[in-house]
Amino acid sequence: MPSELSTPPRLTLADAQPRLRIRIGGRKLGPGKADLLEAIGQTGSIAAAGAAMGMSASRAGLLADELNRMFTRPAVTLQGDGSDAAALTGLGRALLAAYRRLEARTRAAMLDELAPFEADLAPGEPP
Amino acid sequence: MPSELSTPPRLTLADAQPRLRIRIGGRKLGPGKADLLEAIGQTGSIAAAGAAMGMSASRAGLLADELNRMFTRPAVTLQGDGSDAAALTGLGRALLAAYRRLEARTRAAMLDELAPFEADLAPGEPP
Repeated sequence: MPSELSTPPRLTLADAQPRLRIRIGGRKLGPGKADLLEAIGQTGSIAAAGAAMGMSASRAGLLADELNRMFTRPAVTLQGDGSDAAALTGLGRALLAAYRRLEARTRAAMLDELAPFEADLAPGEPP
Repeated sequence: MPSELSTPPRLTLADAQPRLRIRIGGRKLGPGKADLLEAIGQTGSIAAAGAAMGMSASRAGLLADELNRMFTRPAVTLQGDGSDAAALTGLGRALLAAYRRLEARTRAAMLDELAPFEADLAPGEPP
């Protein structure tokens, strides 16, 4: 086996992944809930959004409910016709957009602050 | 019992706590390792730093070793005289300062992005 196959590559900051979680009064907002909001907006269904993320419909419903309890107004609404149909409210859409902007700003700040250390990164497996 | 004792208070963004973790090539840098770096710098000892954080000396040593393996140069060095004495290298001090600046920038961006939602925060238990 050629040795280059077993030698980990040099890493760069392009391999660095920030993960941001926000905790407010015992409630949490992080990448999982943001991805769920996005998937609900795309699929129009909590079950389909969960399936797209590899989680059960009940788990997806629980996370959507947790999100709704963070605020005095809902972020996700069920259509109420007995089907699984769901949609983001204006609050839900605005919250998702704000979280994505925050992720982008966090990533930009990370790249800026870690730039002086890039040349010192040990070799490793890229993500 | 007066009812105000059981009514959760209104929350503000001052109650929101961001937690940032960075993953680079399977290695992780987050608040725990940053706190450990700070405590090693303050106590001059991996065991004392661990104790100040409520962790065993062996766990603190493991985390310090993980940090050192992120880079081609160490962030923490043992004094090598057989004692537990340890110190941050220039890299370790610079990395800690960069991580703290990144936390502050992340917090400022979070406050900015979530400001439109502050009035909608549901009551809850502050941290």
